[in-house]
Amino acid sequence: PDIQSAGDRRNLPIQRVGVKGVRHPVLIRTVDGGTQPSVATFDMFVALPSDVKGTHMSRFVEILEAHAGVPLDPATLRGMFDRMLERLGAQRGEIALTFTYFMRKTAPVSGVSSLMDYEASFHVTGRVGAPAQVHMALQVPVTSLCPCSREISNYGAHNQRSHLTLKIETKAPMHLDDIVRVAESSASCELWGLLKRPDEKYVTERAYDNPKFVEDLVRDVALALRSDARVDAFTVESENFESIHNHSAYARIDFVRGA
Amino acid sequence: PDIQSAGDRRNLPIQRVGVKGVRHPVLIRTVDGGTQPSVATFDMFVALPSDVKGTHMSRFVEILEAHAGVPLDPATLRGMFDRMLERLGAQRGEIALTFTYFMRKTAPVSGVSSLMDYEASFHVTGRVGAPAQVHMALQVPVTSLCPCSREISNYGAHNQRSHLTLKIETKAPMHLDDIVRVAESSASCELWGLLKRPDEKYVTERAYDNPKFVEDLVRDVALALRSDARVDAFTVESENFESIHNHSAYARIDFVRGA
Amino acid sequence: PDIQSAGDRRNLPIQRVGVKGVRHPVLIRTVDGGTQPSVATFDMFVALPSDVKGTHMSRFVEILEAHAGVPLDPATLRGMFDRMLERLGAQRGEIALTFTYFMRKTAPVSGVSSLMDYEASFHVTGRVGAPAQVHMALQVPVTSLCPCSREISNYGAHNQRSHLTLKIETKAPMHLDDIVRVAESSASCELWGLLKRPDEKYVTERAYDNPKFVEDLVRDVALALRSDARVDAFTVESENFESIHNHSAYARIDFVRGA
Amino acid sequence: PDIQSAGDRRNLPIQRVGVKGVRHPVLIRTVDGGTQPSVATFDMFVALPSDVKGTHMSRFVEILEAHAGVPLDPATLRGMFDRMLERLGAQRGEIALTFTYFMRKTAPVSGVSSLMDYEASFHVTGRVGAPAQVHMALQVPVTSLCPCSREISNYGAHNQRSHLTLKIETKAPMHLDDIVRVAESSASCELWGLLKRPDEKYVTERAYDNPKFVEDLVRDVALALRSDARVDAFTVESENFESIHNHSAYARIDFVRGA
Repeated sequence: PDIQSAGDRRNLPIQRVGVKGVRHPVLIRTVDGGTQPSVATFDMFVALPSDVKGTHMSRFVEILEAHAGVPLDPATLRGMFDRMLERLGAQRGEIALTFTYFMRKTAPVSGVSSLMDYEASFHVTGRVGAPAQVHMALQVPVTSLCPCSREISNYGAHNQRSHLTLKIETKAPMHLDDIVRVAESSASCELWGLLKRPDEKYVTERAYDNPKFVEDLVRDVALALRSDARVDAFTVESENFESIHNHSAYARIDFVRGA
Repeated sequence: PDIQSAGDRRNLPIQRVGVKGVRHPVLIRTVDGGTQPSVATFDMFVALPSDVKGTHMSRFVEILEAHAGVPLDPATLRGMFDRMLERLGAQRGEIALTFTYFMRKTAPVSGVSSLMDYEASFHVTGRVGAPAQVHMALQVPVTSLCPCSREISNYGAHNQRSHLTLKIETKAPMHLDDIVRVAESSASCELWGLLKRPDEKYVTERAYDNPKFVEDLVRDVALALRSDARVDAFTVESENFESIHNHSAYARIDFVRGA
Repeated sequence: PDIQSAGDRRNLPIQRVGVKGVRHPVLIRTVDGGTQPSVATFDMFVALPSDVKGTHMSRFVEILEAHAGVPLDPATLRGMFDRMLERLGAQRGEIALTFTYFMRKTAPVSGVSSLMDYEASFHVTGRVGAPAQVHMALQVPVTSLCPCSREISNYGAHNQRSHLTLKIETKAPMHLDDIVRVAESSASCELWGLLKRPDEKYVTERAYDNPKFVEDLVRDVALALRSDARVDAFTVESENFESIHNHSAYARIDFVRGA
Repeated sequence: PDIQSAGDRRNLPIQRVGVKGVRHPVLIRTVDGGTQPSVATFDMFVALPSDVKGTHMSRFVEILEAHAGVPLDPATLRGMFDRMLERLGAQRGEIALTFTYFMRKTAPVSGVSSLMDYEASFHVTGRVGAPAQVHMALQVPVTSLCPCSREISNYGAHNQRSHLTLKIETKAPMHLDDIVRVAESSASCELWGLLKRPDEKYVTERAYDNPKFVEDLVRDVALALRSDARVDAFTVESENFESIHNHSAYARIDFVRGA
């Protein structure tokens, strides 16, 4: 008996049904055309009409298995998404995946090389008969240094790690690396995995020379994204893990071009 | 020099700015008019016009301090919200608080009494000159038992803990206890902190007698909320921590009355 | 049939068996003899001899229920522990509870008052026929400012939030407040929930005047605890959430008096 | 000025100092001699004598960078560990890394293939002049079905996901796959990423045919490890996320051969 395909009389469509928290190895397409292996956590949902009792949970994982080894980028994610709608017989759906993304960076003075890690995600949404939309999001850890603290103090200024989170819809291709660069260049200072003594002098002084409130962080990111014609819409958040409090300062800007 | 009040030329309003993750003791108004102490985590934000450089972070915590000891319910939260807009000179804002809420429950056969814990939250949004809206959300842990597993197996059926999360907008007062009851009565079986042997027999058989897919859980909650005239809009989610997989089954219904 | 009390032939004693992650409201005895409500997460375990098949899980929660409303301090926790061994017929056991603890603090210049939150825990271990031992642990968030960054830079110095975690065995009573004070006075600067402008100047300059490596933080706490005759043994850890990296600096000292 | 190498007069050795929470891509050596890419979180510590002021934090990350691309197994981890002691001029140290490990599994009836994910870790400890010890730990999610619930109920039995965590010291090589197999074969039933209908019947009935208390889970794992001559010592824990409560049942056995 195929219980899931039976009818349903409650007259309630379900906007999202599927699997959540599926961990799977992935290959992420890098900006130079290569790939980077990572481990992703997937959510995969479809819409269920009011007259259908249930979806077929095992097919979501089959789709993941069928795409094992495929380098993931917006084009291949659209392919995976279309395949999901087809296999599930669904009109609409959603795929979200979150993973750690690494970029190699060079320390600002010594030039030593090291990796930085970012939490990245792709978010695919759409419906049958139209190309799916792929949004990207990145959480970029940076330094923020408080302008007020610097202004009022005879010496020093409190600073801290902040998380800049950018969610972006584009009309033309952008890569994760582009988004990292926008975030890092808008902070008081960017971070590195490995810094030698002259680098530490540099980042200390650079942060002091670029004090930013949490409001400045999100506005400076927003300025850069607003002036980038590829970007249709974005949300930028900053959470500053204040070094003088046990809570965060937070700001968020939402922007839709033409709105 | 009051840097925060200086002008700003980037022409970018900020939709939300304030403090995040502030932990504070709270008193929650209970359904019988008493209070229940808990520990809440607050986010408090206001909107910032494009021509203002920064908000005044310390005033958010002052407002929390000023409301210490005030039993929290929709009316007092609206008062706190209005005070926040006033003190921050803001047109719009948002207060969200999350806390553990306890209800005393009686085991179904033995009648022994114990507490159950729920993650609850209040979400206050609004603007100057209109009453703020207060939404409630509750995460209610329940048992779900798989109808397909029961149907196809000669004996047994896989079951697991599920999290039902209900977010509700109301036009007339509802209490957290009412929402818990809707969720628990829609599950294969509800949970208790303390069960004796005859209770364990009861809950085992009750779950087996009420098999529900993740789709059924959200639909049965949605049916109950749709038929409650106090409810204007709701979202109901279920995450089933499958006992046969290492991922969750998930479903979500969004509903707006009259939409 | 009482399956749990049946014999077991595998010849394997179990060092810990019981319940984990039970959330319960608690009253914590404060230093002035009053009480502070909080929400605790309990782990409660007993040892099971090799010839007994199982413990009685519901009795652990019954003991929590029986102690509802009892202000918790080392003496009452020993009472709860003894009751647990008795009710479970056990020779040894363990109770651990973790909760948010608040202290009222006064800002250093303005004198404004606000709460600070700390993650606290009590850990009770022992056996039949001897008084149970009660250890305390506290996670105290503080500011650390890097001496090297200050030394090599023309201006500024990177600083960040750090978590000092102190676990303490005492031969004479100490209160949570005493432990907080040791931690906060050993940091570059302590934190407050609410600071006005002159306070922010104070904390900025104070941190700059008291640069500390992660090694200094744990050594300065250790110095204070070693010189306190009430303390028999301790562990002190510091995790510095570096503002120039996306990882932490960490140090730990373990000390047993007379070892 | 090399502040870190300056002397220190507090007469307090530091047992562990270094970096915590460093995320880095890794290659894990698989049982067939191949490699599996993953993302690991590293903690790297050394002991610091009482007369030395500080360690050199950047060298830890340099060691990670120097081992990029080296397939990790006990032998290569010992090499990394020895290099760390040498570069830091330390007598003792510790490296811990945690990562997601995948195994390909075949569904029990349909034979469909899918991946299962496990949280794995290696823990390297030692001192100068002796081979470092490498312990392995694995968190293996499984199904547990309650014998009491089955016994007292006319039909059904509550079951749930459980986490079996095994930490193992060996005198002869064992692979992560061996440890997974011990855990999965000791449960009421193992988990798969992908199950078809006949598989779901199989796992439902298999769990019902193999009811296990949390005490049975840890004893059955312990029996298997005790009888394996390669194993010198182990800890096995089970946390059962009870489907009838909002807390866990928990048990733990510690074993040292010859103790």
